[in-house]
Amino acid sequence: MGEFDLLARIQARLPRPGPRLRLGSGDDAAIVVPPGGATATSVDALIDGVHFRREWSSLEQIGGKALAVALSDLAAMGARPGEAYVVLGIPPDLDEDGCLELFDGIGAVAAQTGTDLAGGDVTRAPALTLAVTVVGYANRVDDLVTRSGARPGDALVVTGELGGAAAGLRLLESSPETWSSFEPHSDSNLDHVHSPIARQLEPHARLDAGKALAEAGATAMIDLSDGLGGDAGHIARASGVGLRIDAEALPIAAGVAAIGAAAGRDPLELASGGGEDYELLAALPAERLEEASRAVEKEGGAQLTRIGAVVAGEGVEIRLPGGGLLAPRGFDQLR
Amino acid sequence: MGEFDLLARIQARLPRPGPRLRLGSGDDAAIVVPPGGATATSVDALIDGVHFRREWSSLEQIGGKALAVALSDLAAMGARPGEAYVVLGIPPDLDEDGCLELFDGIGAVAAQTGTDLAGGDVTRAPALTLAVTVVGYANRVDDLVTRSGARPGDALVVTGELGGAAAGLRLLESSPETWSSFEPHSDSNLDHVHSPIARQLEPHARLDAGKALAEAGATAMIDLSDGLGGDAGHIARASGVGLRIDAEALPIAAGVAAIGAAAGRDPLELASGGGEDYELLAALPAERLEEASRAVEKEGGAQLTRIGAVVAGEGVEIRLPGGGLLAPRGFDQLR
Repeated sequence: MGEFDLLARIQARLPRPGPRLRLGSGDDAAIVVPPGGATATSVDALIDGVHFRREWSSLEQIGGKALAVALSDLAAMGARPGEAYVVLGIPPDLDEDGCLELFDGIGAVAAQTGTDLAGGDVTRAPALTLAVTVVGYANRVDDLVTRSGARPGDALVVTGELGGAAAGLRLLESSPETWSSFEPHSDSNLDHVHSPIARQLEPHARLDAGKALAEAGATAMIDLSDGLGGDAGHIARASGVGLRIDAEALPIAAGVAAIGAAAGRDPLELASGGGEDYELLAALPAERLEEASRAVEKEGGAQLTRIGAVVAGEGVEIRLPGGGLLAPRGFDQLR
Repeated sequence: MGEFDLLARIQARLPRPGPRLRLGSGDDAAIVVPPGGATATSVDALIDGVHFRREWSSLEQIGGKALAVALSDLAAMGARPGEAYVVLGIPPDLDEDGCLELFDGIGAVAAQTGTDLAGGDVTRAPALTLAVTVVGYANRVDDLVTRSGARPGDALVVTGELGGAAAGLRLLESSPETWSSFEPHSDSNLDHVHSPIARQLEPHARLDAGKALAEAGATAMIDLSDGLGGDAGHIARASGVGLRIDAEALPIAAGVAAIGAAAGRDPLELASGGGEDYELLAALPAERLEEASRAVEKEGGAQLTRIGAVVAGEGVEIRLPGGGLLAPRGFDQLR
């Protein structure tokens, strides 16, 4: 398999780009006419053994997840997705069909989200490596939502449900004995296995919800990749505020309670510290909460849940029903 | 070493960004106000053992080369450099100081070229991995030079000198016996060792020359990363033309003849097949050759050499002084 043959075969399988992309993969650089006065650009790397395991995921899932988690950063800015550039590092045991399966997964997420695959690089590597750069657009700089605008008095909201991806990871890591307690005695039990695993292996970027939140006046926003505790800490630090979260208000995903019980893990710990849900955490003026909820439900197909408030001060407190505090934890890729 | 500590320390060492970059590293995405109506974006990955060897290069050299080779693609479009986004995959044997040395090399090339380091990602990896995305700008789409506009009758030109990087690689790969034949009997001999090794380990992107060539009417352009033969083939195919190159006209870098002789390699083979010189190969109307030469010398600090012509037909021929043909070869990363 040669580099240029592979690039040509990959190109042939990708969705046709929109008119914004004047020149895609195959020249020294891609040429784009930026549709708006501001760009938002983010890069994410996924490496076998660090961010995923090939024995758990299909190659399509790995490719799709790489693009989805990169796009999730654009969602957290309220940006419209534009282009993606993909570096693929190919290990000795991945053949050409495997590379094409990866790009099928990337292409499917690109097509779903209106993202153009505009370029990239392929190379040999000791382990399967994906590095995805995504570029998104807004009409004006002020239309993009950073982490630093939260103000005391703002409501703190989260899209969708939490803990599913962490519960899915526990299931994937668990022994066959744990799995067997979830055998399909009922449809509901089956959902409790499949839905968290899908959350872990096939995350979705909340692009429409992010745009709706930006338009509804979100003052700060972040995607939940490292866990609610850690990611909330980023908003608190960047905005110079404190965040008070009511643990009882957290929208816990289906299956998290049962999996937590089987794995000996507190569901609240999975929901607040587990990471990889790729839901959005946002601060916004309390008086715009209702408008934001309607917009997120209509545009983004997700529930918006108020989980706390922004206060003067610093740090993140997650208050338990009994009055105690849950230690906020995030996932540090290097530890 | 934690991910967030490392990111903060890296950020503190980077050059201060210009006004175009509204928000850099540290949020979900970087925010840029694009200065011009068209962007050129390219991605390059460098992996230890594939693209470099840590025993040959300092970490500063590796970082600097990663950014320079990415910027070389922008040079080949005639784009002005804008932002760079860097993925760093950290192997177990690279400590925090090593990461900072890498970023010192990246930062030095960024400062030299006016590139803003706007974001990136750091992660663990089995081998040192760098993936660099660069974004450049032009006022209009038509100001950017692709590979596909060469027309029969155009002159074929190359910037600077060829073969140096390949000769440097041969020296680095060679046995101590080969090295010893280059011991500094004279200053000139010393240059013949150091200059090719510097070409291999510390390449420069011909950004100013690329812009000068674009302004002087270049119809097609590519940077010489895979070797003259292979890269000329890309222009021939993309433009639907043939390229005829006169081997005797090739500007051979200092030291290539001597190193070629010591290593049993034809200097013309090193100059035409070796790759990694990161000079520019361009086609342009013959009547604009003089203007282009003046501009490249003045703006880009490089000689422009006419090495052949664009003809109707297809393929690349490199004609040897005796009338024979040199087989065009390029370097395929996957073979």
